[in-house]
Amino acid sequence: MKHPPWTRLSKRIVIGNPYYNVALDRYVRPDGQVAEYHYIDIPGSAMVVPVLPDGRLVLVSQYRYLMGRDSLEFPAGGMPVGSSPLQTARRELREESGYEAASWEKIGAFAPYNGVSNEMCHVFVATGLSFVAPEREVTEEMKTVELFIEEIEQQVRSGELWDGMTVASFLLFEAYRGKHHDEL
Amino acid sequence: MKHPPWTRLSKRIVIGNPYYNVALDRYVRPDGQVAEYHYIDIPGSAMVVPVLPDGRLVLVSQYRYLMGRDSLEFPAGGMPVGSSPLQTARRELREESGYEAASWEKIGAFAPYNGVSNEMCHVFVATGLSFVAPEREVTEEMKTVELFIEEIEQQVRSGELWDGMTVASFLLFEAYRGKHHDEL
Repeated sequence: MKHPPWTRLSKRIVIGNPYYNVALDRYVRPDGQVAEYHYIDIPGSAMVVPVLPDGRLVLVSQYRYLMGRDSLEFPAGGMPVGSSPLQTARRELREESGYEAASWEKIGAFAPYNGVSNEMCHVFVATGLSFVAPEREVTEEMKTVELFIEEIEQQVRSGELWDGMTVASFLLFEAYRGKHHDEL
Repeated sequence: MKHPPWTRLSKRIVIGNPYYNVALDRYVRPDGQVAEYHYIDIPGSAMVVPVLPDGRLVLVSQYRYLMGRDSLEFPAGGMPVGSSPLQTARRELREESGYEAASWEKIGAFAPYNGVSNEMCHVFVATGLSFVAPEREVTEEMKTVELFIEEIEQQVRSGELWDGMTVASFLLFEAYRGKHHDEL
């Protein structure tokens, strides 16, 4: 069964900031009813699973204000308008972790919060890494952390790693790795 | 390294609806700078991985307006104030999929969108299922879908299953299953 689409009647930006807008749509449902929907309006994002030659993955630890604690995450960030997912992935890897990568492969995409935000996050595996230097923004106080896959699995199970986008990207990486085991 | 916390100075609800608020905090960073943060303010949520005796998992397919297409997801929903994660999980499983479960186990939690929302999603495995009947809200036009684990893995890899919260919960389930293989 495919559900019939809802039709947008109007869209209005209610709040704008450098990272995302809060928008308000009026829409009509298949049954003819008109309603309103507030949501996060954002161009999309990219997340990178960076793989070192010894098999460790590169993550960054940062303070997350809304949760009031540090979070361990794969490098990621929003797509500026006019920027591609791959360009965004390259920039965020360099800025957040300090690494550059020789090889890039897209391994999937997901919508992290599809009831509230129209963001689609594009996920890449980066290999052939070399450490250059991070170029972090002032609000980005981060630490680069390299962990083996088993360490990440353990931290997910224990709840120490609790960022949903990182957990989802890690599953995409595990699925990719299952099919390309000789290369990684 | 633990990052020093940021301190909230004030909080204001900018937009309210039955599902979540948009809030605006003023806060002071460790370097003394004062800034503002718009975010989704929500009590939390619960997601259920329901396991049938034959090993299939129960999902629901629903139209997602913000992405303009159908999405395959584990049953889930927001926690009303005063409701526990387990109560929410029970209610959403029944309402969305039509199933009730005899046994419940919490297998983890994650923040689906921690840069924008303070939501923490609590994940449960439900077993001992019996089909009763869905009790869906008018905006919830859903279809119950039962899939084997290999089918879900294939749909994640192909991008047909693209809900990040479902992908993250599926990884938590896989980790749990790896440790309790005789029980599931």
